[in-house]
Amino acid sequence: MRCWILTIGDELINGLRVDTNTAWLAARLSDLGVEVERAVSLGDDDGAIRDALAGALAGTDLVIVSGGLGPTQDDRTKEAVAAHFGVGMTRIPEIEEAVQTFFATRGRSITPVNLDQALVPDGFAWHINPRGTAPGLLKEQDDRLLFVLPGVPGEMRAFWHDWLEPLLQDRLGGRHIIRRRWFQTTGIGESDLFSRVGGLEDLAPTITLAYLPSAWGVALYVTGKGEDAPAVEAALAQAEARIVAGSGDWFFARGDVTLAEHLAEQLRERGLHLAVAESCTGGLLADTLTNVPGASEWLDRTWVTYSNQSKTEELGVPAELIAAQGAVSEPVARAMAEGARQQSGSDFALATTGIAGPTGGTPGKPVGLVFLACAGPAGTVVRRYLQGENGRRYNKQRAAANALDLLRRLVEKRNPFQGGWESPG
Amino acid sequence: MRCWILTIGDELINGLRVDTNTAWLAARLSDLGVEVERAVSLGDDDGAIRDALAGALAGTDLVIVSGGLGPTQDDRTKEAVAAHFGVGMTRIPEIEEAVQTFFATRGRSITPVNLDQALVPDGFAWHINPRGTAPGLLKEQDDRLLFVLPGVPGEMRAFWHDWLEPLLQDRLGGRHIIRRRWFQTTGIGESDLFSRVGGLEDLAPTITLAYLPSAWGVALYVTGKGEDAPAVEAALAQAEARIVAGSGDWFFARGDVTLAEHLAEQLRERGLHLAVAESCTGGLLADTLTNVPGASEWLDRTWVTYSNQSKTEELGVPAELIAAQGAVSEPVARAMAEGARQQSGSDFALATTGIAGPTGGTPGKPVGLVFLACAGPAGTVVRRYLQGENGRRYNKQRAAANALDLLRRLVEKRNPFQGGWESPG
Repeated sequence: MRCWILTIGDELINGLRVDTNTAWLAARLSDLGVEVERAVSLGDDDGAIRDALAGALAGTDLVIVSGGLGPTQDDRTKEAVAAHFGVGMTRIPEIEEAVQTFFATRGRSITPVNLDQALVPDGFAWHINPRGTAPGLLKEQDDRLLFVLPGVPGEMRAFWHDWLEPLLQDRLGGRHIIRRRWFQTTGIGESDLFSRVGGLEDLAPTITLAYLPSAWGVALYVTGKGEDAPAVEAALAQAEARIVAGSGDWFFARGDVTLAEHLAEQLRERGLHLAVAESCTGGLLADTLTNVPGASEWLDRTWVTYSNQSKTEELGVPAELIAAQGAVSEPVARAMAEGARQQSGSDFALATTGIAGPTGGTPGKPVGLVFLACAGPAGTVVRRYLQGENGRRYNKQRAAANALDLLRRLVEKRNPFQGGWESPG
Repeated sequence: MRCWILTIGDELINGLRVDTNTAWLAARLSDLGVEVERAVSLGDDDGAIRDALAGALAGTDLVIVSGGLGPTQDDRTKEAVAAHFGVGMTRIPEIEEAVQTFFATRGRSITPVNLDQALVPDGFAWHINPRGTAPGLLKEQDDRLLFVLPGVPGEMRAFWHDWLEPLLQDRLGGRHIIRRRWFQTTGIGESDLFSRVGGLEDLAPTITLAYLPSAWGVALYVTGKGEDAPAVEAALAQAEARIVAGSGDWFFARGDVTLAEHLAEQLRERGLHLAVAESCTGGLLADTLTNVPGASEWLDRTWVTYSNQSKTEELGVPAELIAAQGAVSEPVARAMAEGARQQSGSDFALATTGIAGPTGGTPGKPVGLVFLACAGPAGTVVRRYLQGENGRRYNKQRAAANALDLLRRLVEKRNPFQGGWESPG
């Protein structure tokens, strides 16, 4: 099945927005064995949309359009699509009702342009928007499918799960075998990991391996392709064995799982509770942990103690200790974690303190110095490291990732200093 | 000047990488007054590249290709470009020397494929890569420019600054004036805002207006274009006056400024300090506020009080109040904010409590019910609202944005209930 993706919106071609819908859709399509041949971004312009649509529909089996379905005059996609097929539009009462319900349940007032979302080009099937007001549209002609979806990522993704995925699965049947596996690592750089795991070139072409680094770790993404399911599974098993052996204790999970999700599972399984006292990560640890549904089962409370006074008042860090050692020091990180553990009655407590910069560094304590502490039933472990000048946000993320890795290693009883970590104690 | 961008690489159309080069290039081109009409992403495939190149070169003045210039066999761009023009390639000694120097200064060994970077399609100008090994290529024909650049973002950007920008500025001369303005709003939906501000169609074609909604608010982005600077400035002034008047107290800042950055400035200017007690936003407020450099000047401390016990122990919310009213209630939100203010000695304190779902709702208190409280020198204000089923992350963002909007309105002495907010008190 040959596919083109068209993403529509002035913001995509004037530099205001990075198009993330294409990559998201392409990954899901790829999971179904559909290869995207081309992705085109266009502005909100009738002529350009019609021109691109004609190009896309010639010689492909599937075209997915996203964007330009908003209620205002600058959104042109539906009009351009109707003009391409030379059809008018008809008002669909079920959509109008869904739009009215959408506004009513949110206590928002509705305007006539909102109700025009109920207009559907003649000859198109439609699907109610589970998250917004613009319906999804489908034109089916000569075994060729054209989907038209909103560009808001949450709405587009909801349509995929509710509508496109089951429909496409049904059409494709089982003729293409494609299997994907994720392996998650953290605390090791891409090139170090590559020197341990390699590229698995000897398993090509059945197996391809991609390294996907982020601030939170390096994910390994394995694709197995072929005509014969047992052969693909056997190659995947070989790939998995080599990845898991090569990445050692830096490996933490199989699957498309974040470090926080993995930790949530480890804590929940063991019936453990966590508290967090943050300084340099500024709430990012709490935010990351509470993104996991059900976090309240294992996360008791967290603090951001920015001021020295708050470290003393909230966590019981002695004021004299801060005065003598500085807020960014091994003993203060330790006292923050131990204070948070005691105050909350949790099993584990994490603490972060560091010099975020750009100012505040000294020769003995340069900008980028970070201490991470984890207090637990077996005592407190402190890690020290120096982060590069990668910007405030990236440094917060790296410190949060390293703190979660420290907690993971203590919860799972692994060596917390593997791979060059310094113990300042 | 009409422009197309082609980005090339299998990873861009199989979902492994989001294409950020297009938005980066489009923003820079736009600053020069060049409008990108279309952006196309393709795999590393000779036929597809030749086909797209033919389409791009027909009827445009400028085509920028990035990607697919790596030294390995899977990179196809240079071969496809040479084939499109029906030319061979010639080895350029200066490029070969630069590649050898690149490897030598990094202490890396060179292979014959690396030296093939010195092959340039006949009839093309070339430019040494300031950051890597693949040269930039330029074909000029009938006033039409075709640039071919590497896809590695750092290399592509270096070529832009060193080569494309000065060359294009020279070609364009001063004949095109382009000015941009941002206007930030929050607390109002896109369609409501549109019904107040409109599309400014009467100021076209000098002025174009884009609405850019996110979980944090709606940004208005105005572009003024023309041949005559005073006329463009006059039209921009008209646009600004109408946007600011139309968006009323929902307008909070000019420029490319986030809500948190704006608040930081307001607090700093007034010498005010802030504390935050979070439940349903789970640390996102703290994280968002501490992304602003210098946040420690005005942010004293924050809590995430997930458990009922932590609300009592940390913030002094009476246990009986939680038992009688429930943790998600007007009095508990109020008590959290007032407790946080008192405990920290801050001027203002924000609190959030809500039923994030998917479980935990009752008929009287459905999933999505949120209370936001702000305690300040003039007393405490509580807002109540019901959020839709938009997913955990989006709901956290909306609650955080609404809480920051409440704080902004109290700090700036604006009406905190404008626009349909409910006061549950």
